[in-house]
Amino acid sequence: MKIDAIDAFYLAMPKVTEEADGSQDALVMRVRAGRHTGWGECEASPLTSIAALVAPMSHGACRGVGQVVLGERLDDPVDIARIAARLRFECMDLLQAAHTFSGIEAALWDLLGKARSEPVWRLLGSQQNFGKSPYASQLFGDTPQETLERGRSAAAAGYRAMKFGWGPFGKGDLAADIDQLMAAREGIGPDATLLVDAGQIFGEDVGEAARRLPALEAAGALWLEEPFAGHALAAHAALAAASSKVGLAGGEAAHNEMMARNLIDFGHVRFIQIDCGRIGGIGPAFAVASHAAREGVTYVNHTYTSHLALSASLQPYAGLGDHRLAEYPVTPKALAHELTVQHIDRDANGEIWAPAGVGLGIEVNRQSLANYLVETEIRVAGKTVYRTPALD
Amino acid sequence: MKIDAIDAFYLAMPKVTEEADGSQDALVMRVRAGRHTGWGECEASPLTSIAALVAPMSHGACRGVGQVVLGERLDDPVDIARIAARLRFECMDLLQAAHTFSGIEAALWDLLGKARSEPVWRLLGSQQNFGKSPYASQLFGDTPQETLERGRSAAAAGYRAMKFGWGPFGKGDLAADIDQLMAAREGIGPDATLLVDAGQIFGEDVGEAARRLPALEAAGALWLEEPFAGHALAAHAALAAASSKVGLAGGEAAHNEMMARNLIDFGHVRFIQIDCGRIGGIGPAFAVASHAAREGVTYVNHTYTSHLALSASLQPYAGLGDHRLAEYPVTPKALAHELTVQHIDRDANGEIWAPAGVGLGIEVNRQSLANYLVETEIRVAGKTVYRTPALD
Repeated sequence: MKIDAIDAFYLAMPKVTEEADGSQDALVMRVRAGRHTGWGECEASPLTSIAALVAPMSHGACRGVGQVVLGERLDDPVDIARIAARLRFECMDLLQAAHTFSGIEAALWDLLGKARSEPVWRLLGSQQNFGKSPYASQLFGDTPQETLERGRSAAAAGYRAMKFGWGPFGKGDLAADIDQLMAAREGIGPDATLLVDAGQIFGEDVGEAARRLPALEAAGALWLEEPFAGHALAAHAALAAASSKVGLAGGEAAHNEMMARNLIDFGHVRFIQIDCGRIGGIGPAFAVASHAAREGVTYVNHTYTSHLALSASLQPYAGLGDHRLAEYPVTPKALAHELTVQHIDRDANGEIWAPAGVGLGIEVNRQSLANYLVETEIRVAGKTVYRTPALD
Repeated sequence: MKIDAIDAFYLAMPKVTEEADGSQDALVMRVRAGRHTGWGECEASPLTSIAALVAPMSHGACRGVGQVVLGERLDDPVDIARIAARLRFECMDLLQAAHTFSGIEAALWDLLGKARSEPVWRLLGSQQNFGKSPYASQLFGDTPQETLERGRSAAAAGYRAMKFGWGPFGKGDLAADIDQLMAAREGIGPDATLLVDAGQIFGEDVGEAARRLPALEAAGALWLEEPFAGHALAAHAALAAASSKVGLAGGEAAHNEMMARNLIDFGHVRFIQIDCGRIGGIGPAFAVASHAAREGVTYVNHTYTSHLALSASLQPYAGLGDHRLAEYPVTPKALAHELTVQHIDRDANGEIWAPAGVGLGIEVNRQSLANYLVETEIRVAGKTVYRTPALD
């Protein structure tokens, strides 16, 4: 097959707020090759990623993503790797390219799975599909009491693992954070898994992060996520060396496989969290999962948007039976929920699974696309280089 | 002063080719605050970077760069650092933000320098401005004979350091690369400094890169630049350990200060090359220069475009007397040359200097802007969010 078309759809809620909720807008990619259509989602700024798709060439190593991918052959998983390798050189100086390509790459896997009547995890070579234990991801409350209540609700909803993050954590004094952590533990109960997300609040300040370790240990937190900026390897390594019980988690900002491996090899995280909508798609995420498994590090998806993105993010480690935690978007915005016909619901054991259907196993709901579509047009030197495509 | 306006100008040569020459287009930023105007240049995809400037908010940590910077106070260098810190959180998930902000940040320094009647290197705290020895940067010829002739021309033009890169290097067999290296040395003569740029050709293949080390040593190369992808820290570290005489150089892809520090701390490069048009501007580049000086690593600018960009790239290490090499764009395209009224020419000793004038010390030529302007318009949801601004 030849890749004939790449269409980008910018969706948004009628009102986008400042809350740290990435499901308020979406960039969905539709790829066509031969008789088949694949879909994928970028976890990225839609307008900027569209510009990176159609950008005029600046020089040989800085081209629009579409220019590199359109017209390429797609018959086998090695074709996807070959296209990604071409992109690494021809879009070397286009920073946003990884975010743009992430959704396209997932769509290529979806398309190839449909053409071969196989789920993507099988195309990746996984022999078996293992269920994952979803954790409910939520913000710390403004007060410890609110946090406690959110923990209780998640426990009542049947979650056995809960993550609290952002909000006031790390912004006030140590005592306030201790109160929050104890409230979180009290809310979820003594047996549930507690995960804490610092949202990069400590920058590179190892001392401030390390002061929270005793309280994190006392609350029985399994991990401390993103204490520092995603590139702060030395800070991660220093905090990892200071922490025996609480593991560091990170990786959502990784926009290529190497950046994620660096967090493992040099930052010494114990949990590597990959968003297939940012790292360049499913292929590099699979490579990170393999590296993590070799190094004794636990792979976890990062997903805060639709179940199209969730399916993509489960594929890379569906075959890893020892890597069982999964981030599960519990209260995404309406557009993220309505974007797909199918949903990945928890089964009777409370587990979620990469779909058994062909490709990503998730159909896009065309009517919902239409409902949330943001009409966009880009003109360069008198020519329209992008206009919101027709929904068929 | 309050930052009142940020205007982005997309310039391009009438014809942009696939050659690895980043001076074929440009994105120039004009910032206005109070009575003053500052100018800066991004080394980035113009359309994509403009989109990142005006992108609608996706969520609290993914906003357009303009939304964060416009309206901010600018009275002191600490204001620039504060704005950059805000950006790190509020544009955390907007990958292209660093490239977009790079030109704006340089313009903020230019503006502040004009307001205070000081050159930027003084605002950075440098006591003295040290001249740099420019190296002529060129591509390997298609044949060793061509390379030899290019070397002779550069030597005849008075350069005492020359860099050869890209082209066939690393793409053929070892013997071909040996011939190229010997031709380069013969061309430039026995006493000139020889620098070699592999253009990331070895990906992460340490073995292939290491096979070139004896020939690089025999040719007396001072450095091997970018043998691997910019994030390939483990590969850099392994090659650095295998090389005693030839130092590794890299860093041009760094889009934040930490990424550059990682190449020093974990990749063990001996030369760190920073492009102020990509790393987020002059502030983070200055921090990298300070770190390099502490670690005994040599700081070098990366510049392949206009002398506005060259001035910005010289500021961070103008005050470092022991860091003397500078990349000098020898044959930039007409738009890059004509973009500025002044040029940073070599003095009688063959050295170049950060300008003594206020700000960046380089005026933009308005007529040239007009000549190369690429009219651009972006419409989102019925509103024009960007249109090429008037040139006054």
